[in-house]
Amino acid sequence: MVHAVIAGWGNVGYHLAKALAQSGINITIVSSQSGKNAYNGQFSDRIKFISDVDLIDGEVDYCFLTLKDDGILQTAKKLPPEVKKNAVLVHCSGVLPADHLGQITERWGLFYPLNSFSKTMDFQWKGVPLFIDAATEKPRIELWELAKSIGARPVKNSDKDREILHIAAVFANNFSNHILHLSHQILEEKGIPFDLLMPLIRTTVEKISHLQPEEAQTGPAKRGDIKTIQKHLEIISDEEIKEVYKILSVSINPELKNKIL
Amino acid sequence: MVHAVIAGWGNVGYHLAKALAQSGINITIVSSQSGKNAYNGQFSDRIKFISDVDLIDGEVDYCFLTLKDDGILQTAKKLPPEVKKNAVLVHCSGVLPADHLGQITERWGLFYPLNSFSKTMDFQWKGVPLFIDAATEKPRIELWELAKSIGARPVKNSDKDREILHIAAVFANNFSNHILHLSHQILEEKGIPFDLLMPLIRTTVEKISHLQPEEAQTGPAKRGDIKTIQKHLEIISDEEIKEVYKILSVSINPELKNKIL
Repeated sequence: MVHAVIAGWGNVGYHLAKALAQSGINITIVSSQSGKNAYNGQFSDRIKFISDVDLIDGEVDYCFLTLKDDGILQTAKKLPPEVKKNAVLVHCSGVLPADHLGQITERWGLFYPLNSFSKTMDFQWKGVPLFIDAATEKPRIELWELAKSIGARPVKNSDKDREILHIAAVFANNFSNHILHLSHQILEEKGIPFDLLMPLIRTTVEKISHLQPEEAQTGPAKRGDIKTIQKHLEIISDEEIKEVYKILSVSINPELKNKIL
Repeated sequence: MVHAVIAGWGNVGYHLAKALAQSGINITIVSSQSGKNAYNGQFSDRIKFISDVDLIDGEVDYCFLTLKDDGILQTAKKLPPEVKKNAVLVHCSGVLPADHLGQITERWGLFYPLNSFSKTMDFQWKGVPLFIDAATEKPRIELWELAKSIGARPVKNSDKDREILHIAAVFANNFSNHILHLSHQILEEKGIPFDLLMPLIRTTVEKISHLQPEEAQTGPAKRGDIKTIQKHLEIISDEEIKEVYKILSVSINPELKNKIL
């Protein structure tokens, strides 16, 4: 029976534990007491909680360190010698180099799912890119199979490519989300419900799974419709939102530059 | 049998014709020959094409003018007198006032679906807000029922509110799409496939149907993680993308203002 330790009980640790337990792996979670309370035995009897790495019991095949980037190495160092020696030590960060744990063990691994996790939402692993790397072929193949067994899409690429992907993800996730927040703010100020926009937002995403985003673009900036743009700028009262409106309109259509900036 | 004329064969006209024909309404589409060719009898024998408003035949209950904003009034004026007298003349614009056709008829109506349409993609009307208005109660109720019969979500609000919604939609659709385009560009330059980001993009949208966008925000700007932001700014080579990165990071976290601008 495969046994994995998950150190850390954040959003990634939570969903990883759930998925691995569902594919028949025994899980030991190392977490503070508060994490244990948050769990409440809700998903599987394959999962047990311990409060400290010293309490790890039995042989360990994998140890996933699902911690903040700057705490990973520190926790890995504290692992019991048998775990450090026998288990594959895996980190789940998209920012750190794959061999971040290489200074502790030759059995290092990377298992980084590119998505956004939240304990309060179900997570669908199907098709989610899961970046895999390892020091040697055997654990690399094992981690690859593990990714497939939870329905994810294993991918191998370089540290350099993951760095670029992280920047692209900041746009696709953080910045898109912020744009939606500004949209929400514009409506909220006038008491108009944001859910009226949800079908449009879903279509926006659906479109770019068929077309490139550039081809999918429409709207006043794209059309160079100065009249509408000026009307919008008059109506928007918040200076900061106005600024973002201008910058993004010009970024969509550089010909607007001298006309609205 | 209800008979509707649809003047215009753009993206909205196309999907409206399809939906209305499916709910049992006879449709006459007024369109140039090229529009007729594009149709090819693919969805229903309830739909016929004519090339000019003068060829409208039989009693007309509704005439939907799914044309560019500045062509609506002009085409409405050319309608045969019986149509102008008996039919409810409806426009489908989110920008024009509901009573835009009021100077031609007392039987004006508004039927504006808030979404983004494309002939090359199936359209799901379920839950899509459809803004309804009319000069009098009878056609208002009829248009309301029509919206429901195609699965949409009829909504009544003011011209003022639709104006605000249009601005919010520019953010939610055009600006989000542009951010995704920049993300696409960052990856394309390095030959990294954009589809790796699709699951993350879908999660971003899924999150805001559970949380407000502000609560869903994560990432280096939100955390005030200057080190990562500076690293990203060093890596991004395109000056314009760098500018958007800075402006949006500061918009997410105003404390970054003096640090990265």
